[in-house]
Amino acid sequence: MPLTLTPLQDIPLIKPGDDLAGIILRALELSSLQLETGDIIVLAQKIVSKAEGRLVNLATVSPSPAALELSAKSGKDPRLAELILQESNMVLRTRLGSVIVEHHLGFVCANAGIDQSNVAASSEWVLLLPKDPDKSAAEIRTKIEEATGKQIGVMIIDSHGRAWRIGTVGTTIGLSGIPGAVDLRGQTDLSGYTLQTTVVGAADELAAAASLVMGQAAEGTPVVHVRGFPYPLREGSLKELLRPKEQDMFR
Amino acid sequence: MPLTLTPLQDIPLIKPGDDLAGIILRALELSSLQLETGDIIVLAQKIVSKAEGRLVNLATVSPSPAALELSAKSGKDPRLAELILQESNMVLRTRLGSVIVEHHLGFVCANAGIDQSNVAASSEWVLLLPKDPDKSAAEIRTKIEEATGKQIGVMIIDSHGRAWRIGTVGTTIGLSGIPGAVDLRGQTDLSGYTLQTTVVGAADELAAAASLVMGQAAEGTPVVHVRGFPYPLREGSLKELLRPKEQDMFR
Repeated sequence: MPLTLTPLQDIPLIKPGDDLAGIILRALELSSLQLETGDIIVLAQKIVSKAEGRLVNLATVSPSPAALELSAKSGKDPRLAELILQESNMVLRTRLGSVIVEHHLGFVCANAGIDQSNVAASSEWVLLLPKDPDKSAAEIRTKIEEATGKQIGVMIIDSHGRAWRIGTVGTTIGLSGIPGAVDLRGQTDLSGYTLQTTVVGAADELAAAASLVMGQAAEGTPVVHVRGFPYPLREGSLKELLRPKEQDMFR
Repeated sequence: MPLTLTPLQDIPLIKPGDDLAGIILRALELSSLQLETGDIIVLAQKIVSKAEGRLVNLATVSPSPAALELSAKSGKDPRLAELILQESNMVLRTRLGSVIVEHHLGFVCANAGIDQSNVAASSEWVLLLPKDPDKSAAEIRTKIEEATGKQIGVMIIDSHGRAWRIGTVGTTIGLSGIPGAVDLRGQTDLSGYTLQTTVVGAADELAAAASLVMGQAAEGTPVVHVRGFPYPLREGSLKELLRPKEQDMFR
């Protein structure tokens, strides 16, 4: 069965308080897409954060001494540096132009995922990640499932850099109703050799695929409909994808 | 336009010397898929390595003192440790069960990408990565383009672990006729705010998507047909995706 990813047209600019599930249901209708059980809806983090009112005006932020120090090392606005620290468990690396942190949500990312683009014409407004993206995904999922009677998955993604490779790739920050990682250990391969170490980051593979379709540029299509995800849907969580610190050789 | 990834059925088990382009053309025919200009064919590394005869019998390998040391630290077979060293520029991390290296091809990966599964019923045979995957991709592309008259992209992928996250994801190790990274800097976003830092790892996003469709398990569908890649095709190379060592904060 092919995997098909369709960016939904006609998603309006999202404002705080907007009902994303309702907006998605209308966009599906306009696209003549009938949801089926097993389909997945992938949302860009930006629209979830906006709907949840995670906008902060930098004018309201007072940088701490630690933020001033981080600002000096990174070249970031001291008020942005303050927000990065507030959103993070720890700073892993700092150099001019980039701050790599472990976010409160548990993953490693640049600038605590705080976004200055695509927020408002003034760059004084920034956008924090959703407070609990697994929960955001679950809420959207419940509403869509109730409206349609179909069992689906919902995922929220962001663009993350990688340690050793150039270019961002779409990465899962929250999910509901789909597996995060899929454990294939113990299965045999074509030669009858037992697979030793294969845990697949299935949700992240889908996140990358959806990100490709969303694009990053002006047009912006922040919701993608997915059909043909090859693994059985089940309850899942972001935690499945996060390597415990004590197993991390590169922190 | 949707992005559609279709795993090709009826790909036989590949042997050294096999003509992959011919096999893919026949599989496309059997799938009733007509290649169009702009389509992309994604191949799993394993079948390219096998066709290129990159099999090594461990019985023929004599471990060096350095390999014996690596074997002691990692628990790997000393002869496999020898091959890992031969295939790598440097070892980045070693611990029980895993050796993370910079491969001669320039990327960071586990065990120099050497595969023990899916090679032969005996685990004495292992499979090295293709010698020059960009070139392998270009050769397959040329043959398919000559046979069909369509301009396509060809990509070779492997499953790589990530520094901070659980689970492997499909990752580009060679490509021809498609961009590796896409630079969106200077474009404006929906708010008229100029995007500052967005270079997208477009080929890696597609690699992850294709890997999802290939699966890792017994069925194994090592060739995927892609339609709807959203960026213009152009000449590309793996190098676009490799972060120069001096810019790498996590090596």
